[in-house]
Amino acid sequence: MKLNIAVLPGDGIGPEITKQSVKVLKAIAERFDHKFLFEEAVVGAAAIYKTKNPLPETTIELCKKSDAVLFGAIGDPKYDSNPSAKVRPEQGLLKLRKDLGLFANIRPVRAFERLIKHSPLRPERIEGADMVIYRELTGGIYFGKKTLSEDAQVASDLCVYSAEEITRMAHLAFKAAQKRRKKVTLVDKANVLETSRLWRRTVKKIAEDYPEVEVDFLYVDNAAMQMIINPKQFDVILTENMFGDIISDEASVIGGSIGLLASASVGKEYALFEPIHGSYPQAAGKGIANPIASILSAAMLLEHFNLLEEASAIQTAVDKSLEMNICTSDISKESSYSTEKVGTIIESLI
Amino acid sequence: MKLNIAVLPGDGIGPEITKQSVKVLKAIAERFDHKFLFEEAVVGAAAIYKTKNPLPETTIELCKKSDAVLFGAIGDPKYDSNPSAKVRPEQGLLKLRKDLGLFANIRPVRAFERLIKHSPLRPERIEGADMVIYRELTGGIYFGKKTLSEDAQVASDLCVYSAEEITRMAHLAFKAAQKRRKKVTLVDKANVLETSRLWRRTVKKIAEDYPEVEVDFLYVDNAAMQMIINPKQFDVILTENMFGDIISDEASVIGGSIGLLASASVGKEYALFEPIHGSYPQAAGKGIANPIASILSAAMLLEHFNLLEEASAIQTAVDKSLEMNICTSDISKESSYSTEKVGTIIESLI
Ligand SMILES: CC(C)[C@H](C(=O)O)[C@@H](O)C(=O)O
Ligand SMILES: CC(C)[C@H](C(=O)O)[C@@H](O)C(=O)O
Repeated sequence: MKLNIAVLPGDGIGPEITKQSVKVLKAIAERFDHKFLFEEAVVGAAAIYKTKNPLPETTIELCKKSDAVLFGAIGDPKYDSNPSAKVRPEQGLLKLRKDLGLFANIRPVRAFERLIKHSPLRPERIEGADMVIYRELTGGIYFGKKTLSEDAQVASDLCVYSAEEITRMAHLAFKAAQKRRKKVTLVDKANVLETSRLWRRTVKKIAEDYPEVEVDFLYVDNAAMQMIINPKQFDVILTENMFGDIISDEASVIGGSIGLLASASVGKEYALFEPIHGSYPQAAGKGIANPIASILSAAMLLEHFNLLEEASAIQTAVDKSLEMNICTSDISKESSYSTEKVGTIIESLI
Repeated sequence: MKLNIAVLPGDGIGPEITKQSVKVLKAIAERFDHKFLFEEAVVGAAAIYKTKNPLPETTIELCKKSDAVLFGAIGDPKYDSNPSAKVRPEQGLLKLRKDLGLFANIRPVRAFERLIKHSPLRPERIEGADMVIYRELTGGIYFGKKTLSEDAQVASDLCVYSAEEITRMAHLAFKAAQKRRKKVTLVDKANVLETSRLWRRTVKKIAEDYPEVEVDFLYVDNAAMQMIINPKQFDVILTENMFGDIISDEASVIGGSIGLLASASVGKEYALFEPIHGSYPQAAGKGIANPIASILSAAMLLEHFNLLEEASAIQTAVDKSLEMNICTSDISKESSYSTEKVGTIIESLI
């Protein structure tokens, strides 16, 4: 198979981790006789420094003409500490998600057998936990109208959802549940928010099309607690943009490190693959970032094109590396390999 | 001292737990020679059933003429499963918070030495954790304009904050930090939300008035993860309404059970004391609900009136009861006492 892959390393540790996943994808291409072509473009703070625009036209064009996008990370301390900046790195990622219509962000979370001992949670709570979070990605408070009064004393953000946006997301989640343990948990705040009540009404209706799938409704505050008390209850979590952002970062503690969690962002036409972690600027250039989230995002990319054997070759290589205790310091203080070294070893295991 | 206390038991387990805290307050009055007068009123689903109004005028009046409000819990499964209901129990609590101007919700979280073994987190992660969450309570997306289109296909919720609302909250948080470990962590989503950027700008400015207090800024997704990975880093957490709702329920896992966490909601004129847990309808009437959150809320009530010895008498009684393993089943499956029994024993320890 021939695939044109746009590589958007972005900011912070983005470049060093995507370098590893590209290496691994090249090894896959060689072993399975595919042709993967990679082309790079800037996004985020890196793009602002170069072009004053966090998402230059040329970057969007590249993404649109490619078969898939491999994304690194976004964010820069200069902007984090300057809440008044008008142009911001994150706008690049948000606009990209919107322009490519990537409305569904899919985040699998499982407790890696080998890593359970490193989790802040007690082993018996997480052993066997295996869920996937379906986070809506192009709606809600992320994209509603924002205002700031002229005297800069009053600010607002609007959260909007349509039944249509909810419907397309819900179908994806129910379909995923059909192939898994047949349970969907909607996380919302329907006791307070009008948008959440629309989510609840719409999901209840769609659930009727999937009689074999059990549906559960949890308020987001309760869900944030249940995630730690009893994560095994979750199979498919369906939720809106902001709650998905919070819940999935929280869920990363089950895996042992946020440095392990991959995600796919998909729409009707395009697909983008990115770690759920951020740009981790404190680590940039130090060679200590965990490349596994990016490498597993590459595996999700392959799955997306139905290259299942290839995807599982990556997963097996990652599992083996973890078994051999080849990992960065976020996972084990004792045995700490560099980003580059972990990438090279996983590459060699393909 | 003479105190008029309005008791609003509310829904679900509300009545059975507030009954215990009233008992304990009566024991305090007797031992320390105070005069506490209690008067009850309905709120929430209980009020809807009786008056069709989740917050009847007589209830507000009682609260306003009292020195403090002791609140139980709110919420009813009938409404949770009917997202189309126009009148809802939660409106009672939200209107009460707004009418009484209770803009600051203060939620202390600590790892009880005795209960560390029951936490889903590893003991070494939480031993010594001790934080207080300052959650803004009368602004943000809870109170902004809500809309639902005529065809019920599009819904919206507006999140609004003014610098003034942020300022009064921030001062409370910094003052609290001065008396504690001198650190404030602002939890926001300033990389995406305009309101969060207003929070960040305003808090930065106020921080200059408190040079001895260290300020840290965390994005809410990262905070949800840090809460589990390294809760000991937190001293005072300052945050907006919705993030505070999520983060504080999550933080309850540190204490071992949400059934232990008390809160004070304060404004310029009035003060209300309530557990952070909900109405837990599945447990209502079964005598299995943990009364400690309500009893510790009563202790916060006493503290509010500077009755420090009295407040600490309650805390000591609670600690003793936990030491003796006298607790409801949420804490220990082996030794499970009833709501009433735990209340009576704590009362007898005053
Ligand atoms: C960088 C930021 C805008 C982004 C988000 O909030 O969506 C990130 O946290 C994520 O989860 O992908
Ligand atoms: C019952 C609900 C409206 C309330 C809230 O979200 O504020 C509760 O969860 C709380 O935290 O006090």
